[in-house]
Amino acid sequence: MKTIINPPYSDWEKYAKRPAFPAEDLEEKVASVLEKVRLEGDSALKNFTLAFDKVNVENIKVSSSEIEIACAEVSTELKDAIAIAVNNIKVFHESQQINEAIVETISGVECWRKSVAIEKVGLYIPGGSAPLFSTILMLGIPAKIAGCKKIILCTPPDENGKINPAILFTATFLGIEEIYKVGGAQAIGAMAFGTETVPKVDKIFGPGNQYVTKAKELVQKTGIAIDLPAGPSEVLVIADSSADADFVAADLLSQTEHGADSQVVLLSNSAELMEEVKVSLNNQLQLLPRASVAEKALENSFFVLLNTINECVDFSNLYAPEHLILAIDNAELFAGKIKNAGSVFLGNYSCESAGDYASGTNHTLPTNGYAKSYSGVSLDSFVKKITFQKITKKGIQNIGKTIEIMAEAEQLLAHKNAVSIRLKKLQDEK
Amino acid sequence: MKTIINPPYSDWEKYAKRPAFPAEDLEEKVASVLEKVRLEGDSALKNFTLAFDKVNVENIKVSSSEIEIACAEVSTELKDAIAIAVNNIKVFHESQQINEAIVETISGVECWRKSVAIEKVGLYIPGGSAPLFSTILMLGIPAKIAGCKKIILCTPPDENGKINPAILFTATFLGIEEIYKVGGAQAIGAMAFGTETVPKVDKIFGPGNQYVTKAKELVQKTGIAIDLPAGPSEVLVIADSSADADFVAADLLSQTEHGADSQVVLLSNSAELMEEVKVSLNNQLQLLPRASVAEKALENSFFVLLNTINECVDFSNLYAPEHLILAIDNAELFAGKIKNAGSVFLGNYSCESAGDYASGTNHTLPTNGYAKSYSGVSLDSFVKKITFQKITKKGIQNIGKTIEIMAEAEQLLAHKNAVSIRLKKLQDEK
Repeated sequence: MKTIINPPYSDWEKYAKRPAFPAEDLEEKVASVLEKVRLEGDSALKNFTLAFDKVNVENIKVSSSEIEIACAEVSTELKDAIAIAVNNIKVFHESQQINEAIVETISGVECWRKSVAIEKVGLYIPGGSAPLFSTILMLGIPAKIAGCKKIILCTPPDENGKINPAILFTATFLGIEEIYKVGGAQAIGAMAFGTETVPKVDKIFGPGNQYVTKAKELVQKTGIAIDLPAGPSEVLVIADSSADADFVAADLLSQTEHGADSQVVLLSNSAELMEEVKVSLNNQLQLLPRASVAEKALENSFFVLLNTINECVDFSNLYAPEHLILAIDNAELFAGKIKNAGSVFLGNYSCESAGDYASGTNHTLPTNGYAKSYSGVSLDSFVKKITFQKITKKGIQNIGKTIEIMAEAEQLLAHKNAVSIRLKKLQDEK
Repeated sequence: MKTIINPPYSDWEKYAKRPAFPAEDLEEKVASVLEKVRLEGDSALKNFTLAFDKVNVENIKVSSSEIEIACAEVSTELKDAIAIAVNNIKVFHESQQINEAIVETISGVECWRKSVAIEKVGLYIPGGSAPLFSTILMLGIPAKIAGCKKIILCTPPDENGKINPAILFTATFLGIEEIYKVGGAQAIGAMAFGTETVPKVDKIFGPGNQYVTKAKELVQKTGIAIDLPAGPSEVLVIADSSADADFVAADLLSQTEHGADSQVVLLSNSAELMEEVKVSLNNQLQLLPRASVAEKALENSFFVLLNTINECVDFSNLYAPEHLILAIDNAELFAGKIKNAGSVFLGNYSCESAGDYASGTNHTLPTNGYAKSYSGVSLDSFVKKITFQKITKKGIQNIGKTIEIMAEAEQLLAHKNAVSIRLKKLQDEK
């Protein structure tokens, strides 16, 4: 863990850059997986599942009896917790439903927007040791609120050909019934092109490893929308002397357990607090089962001591963190100065894991500095906003001349004529 | 112009596909332009401008005296027309400003979203014979309303090294003062990487030829956001016997003059109307200065006769047109059934060119079927929606247990610990 003391502003950009983990031949490998899926459909999916997940899957689609058995296996305690999280996430995402008014921009010209659900969406949920069922909540709940007609889910099977019961329960709880046992780049290909079993979708959501991420980037070129460009998870904490060092250390550590490529950053105007956090970090680290992963992530991470909290905010805006915790006095005042961040947590009791699971906000957020120009997933991600306009005879008479002049100046005379022909007809009607 | 009569549903998908215009080596060529710009900055820009635009540009940035002279050259008539258009576009895009409420998802847990402007945006405006100053309105007005701090504009110079006066006037009228004489893929590279003269931006907007489009796709991989994936412009008209055949023909033709790769489609339940439109189309075509371009575009285009307007709407939803004109009785009723479209025009007097220039809606829209999952440009395109949350001691006590259970089930124990450590402290406080 590096500590940087009052770096000159000219160095900030350098520190705000994320560490790079280039992967050899990644694009080539992923492109070949996608091409095979496009050409060979289900049989390619089965072959890749055998090769990568080490299991022979006969039925790609999860059966209703598999779902029934899985739901019975999930503890009541976990079911109850999921129900509470669902409620909070639903309340917050439902508040994002907005009916926009019809606007008469000039007499006789009415314009409006309407949110219309994306018809077919595909959710990708990674497998591996930890079943990320919370991501199903973050994608499935807004998809349901938006009214997406087809919501499918792909997730890789374990070596026994099974899906973690918590994943099957959570999907079913939300009313997502089309679940496919396929992971990796091949799952992205299946949802992008469609196979005999897996339907083609219009937009693909969800996190994944570098293969999944690259596959999403590549299928985007073929017209499939994706939620966000992805990178390793990260948190930036701004803390002053009012912060609780144990809490700060715990929040930093919670982000390191995602993977060795995660990055955590602490900015502070208090050298004392920084020292306390370091001590607490080392103490808490020893107790973690994933300590070795966390230790690796800490190697990419750093602390910066700056003169003021305002400077910390400026640095954070340059860094554009996925998660930003303001463990400072007057957090709400400084929140108004945040220009670039995915999700912001105010005060000592707003820990990032609350937003990851149950407070109501979405946890699918822009990483890697993308928060400068991308929003996290929200209800907006599952709809298109279609514009409508209705122009009356009076309306075209009001703006017709304007359009004619502009179209002519752009040398688009057929555009001009579409107006002229209408104005003439109205003239003749008189 | 092909006419298809009552095609079976199984053929619809085939007709809804856009014609492909593959370009050899496009990606390779564009990637090499981008790389040169990244490495050599301004000198690469000047070299490419000499090679492609046939002019030696000494100062890439347009000077204030150039702007002054240009503004004096624009006619008062055009200035007045632009002012009316600006007003309508402003009214509609200002109506998209929404302050979302703070939501208490559970007692002690407050969540909200805030729209924050993307700091630096770059607008690309194509050059060539027709100066597309209207696109400056469509991008510059929402950028200004959003409050983007830096708005720059790149557009290629003509062979005398000049920018069309209407472009300079329009930009200046909106308060956009940083204008650079550079076009093509090199302009996209300049805005993506920054050069000595052109600043790096966070998001790039604007239309362009295949080189510009490919360059936008490629820089997206480096973390620069773009407005939309682009394709040739298109219109789909649904017309019944109540439509005016001359208007329909004029609307179809207005879209064909954009380029030989544009596509126009007419769907109708009336064979008679279709015949009338064909006759009118041929008559109007003769009068157009760009008739040869229009004729080529008509070769990619087709008419489909279907049984009912409902079938026409279903076909249109499959096609997902950029522009959709409903020249039918009860247009408003059918508007509710539109699932996929960029912008919809209702009734006989809502011509597409109104939306292109002056009604208030945006004309930067998803083409090529992207309307299934993408929205057109709006105020939303110039902001990020950042989520915030504030959790009180009471709040973490309310949802702490839920988070602990879920984090443990996902085997993310550091996430769990960030909550446990807070709950314990509150316990100890008692």
